Amino acid sequence: MKINILTLFPDMFTPLKTSMLGRGLEDGKWELNLVNFRKFTTDVHHHVDDSPYGGGAGMVLQVMPIKKALDSLPSKGKVIITAPQGATFNQKKAQEWSKEKELTFICGHYEGFDQRVYDLADEAVSIGDYVLTGGELPTMSMIDATVRLIPGILGNTVSPVEESFSHGLLEYPQYTRPEDFEGKKVPEILTSGNHQKIDRWRHKEALKATYLYRPDMLKNYNLNTEEKKMLEEIKSEEDK
Amino acid sequence: MKINILTLFPDMFTPLKTSMLGRGLEDGKWELNLVNFRKFTTDVHHHVDDSPYGGGAGMVLQVMPIKKALDSLPSKGKVIITAPQGATFNQKKAQEWSKEKELTFICGHYEGFDQRVYDLADEAVSIGDYVLTGGELPTMSMIDATVRLIPGILGNTVSPVEESFSHGLLEYPQYTRPEDFEGKKVPEILTSGNHQKIDRWRHKEALKATYLYRPDMLKNYNLNTEEKKMLEEIKSEEDK
Repeated sequence: MKINILTLFPDMFTPLKTSMLGRGLEDGKWELNLVNFRKFTTDVHHHVDDSPYGGGAGMVLQVMPIKKALDSLPSKGKVIITAPQGATFNQKKAQEWSKEKELTFICGHYEGFDQRVYDLADEAVSIGDYVLTGGELPTMSMIDATVRLIPGILGNTVSPVEESFSHGLLEYPQYTRPEDFEGKKVPEILTSGNHQKIDRWRHKEALKATYLYRPDMLKNYNLNTEEKKMLEEIKSEEDK
Repeated sequence: MKINILTLFPDMFTPLKTSMLGRGLEDGKWELNLVNFRKFTTDVHHHVDDSPYGGGAGMVLQVMPIKKALDSLPSKGKVIITAPQGATFNQKKAQEWSKEKELTFICGHYEGFDQRVYDLADEAVSIGDYVLTGGELPTMSMIDATVRLIPGILGNTVSPVEESFSHGLLEYPQYTRPEDFEGKKVPEILTSGNHQKIDRWRHKEALKATYLYRPDMLKNYNLNTEEKKMLEEIKSEEDK
């Protein structure tokens, strides 16, 4: 997969060059092309912004340098922009994007975009209900979530299938050494060696965490007969 | 404000040292303390993880090095960890945190935490329904959203009050030069010079965007008489 990023701060992208994603870059499993759209300005001061029509505080990022930067790419794939009015980014979106050959992200900074910048994108995505100084961090998060699903990126360390959100439940609790940490012990069942019981316990704990903390996720989840039984157990245990 | 971050990848945090947040650091408006918890391991290979009790693929981050790293801090303030079971991070949380004197974030990487790590935190926060290779990127997003609200960080470039989510509505569309971009023109009203009309147009457009794309936000919003009138207009315009 090739990913193009239009940004005023190409130096910010070190996180994508570190750790597993960085190794994936070195191994040629994906490609990163950082494009500073300030280079596509025509005025002598290389301004990328201007004051808003209609007045008001602040500046607005102009459409022209971004359009020219996009046009300079030999190919673009799907063009994505972060916008509060977009659909919220989630794991399903990451899975969908991970199958694309090429993606292009447009990052704003401090200021809003000229409304016509949004028309240059194929998709507007929101990262959540909060305001950031720029689009770089949310763009990196979306790229991380997407690229890690490309086969070969994670190696054998983690299997993306076993995780929260992929299968519709939160993860079950994990424990490692020491067995006793300041009086907090690992649940006995995990050291029992009975793998059938361990599997059931883990499945039930995943269901329990989802029921307690993210009941909204259960609405879209089809419980099988065993899971229905587990949920009954959880409810009666919680009532005590 | 002082922010401590416990991480295995202190080099990833360049985005916080760039642009406005970076200037804020240089000006002493906030302080960043990166702590690599690998330094708090006691074995010769400096392992921070171990295989999970009960078996299964992958490794689990141990509680001990993180506990020791926390204990090494002269003070911690509120300790925050990212967790899918936590409450979703939003602008209200950023505003709340921006008033704190000190915050400490615990970042995981690829693998899950030993369940007992969560007990070390005062608050578990989710960044959204997607899986990342580590906690570094969401932690940086939360820090960006929080630190930019500290007085003096944004300077005069943007006023945090005028933005999406702060006042409960999405932002109105902004436009800057050129007036005509490939046939897409700036709405006439914005070049009219009539500021009362411009203000009403902007307010109505903000309401319209929210009504069309984020109707859920309107549920918690108290419409005044003028806004109720605007919403009626929007509805009848949309019906056409």
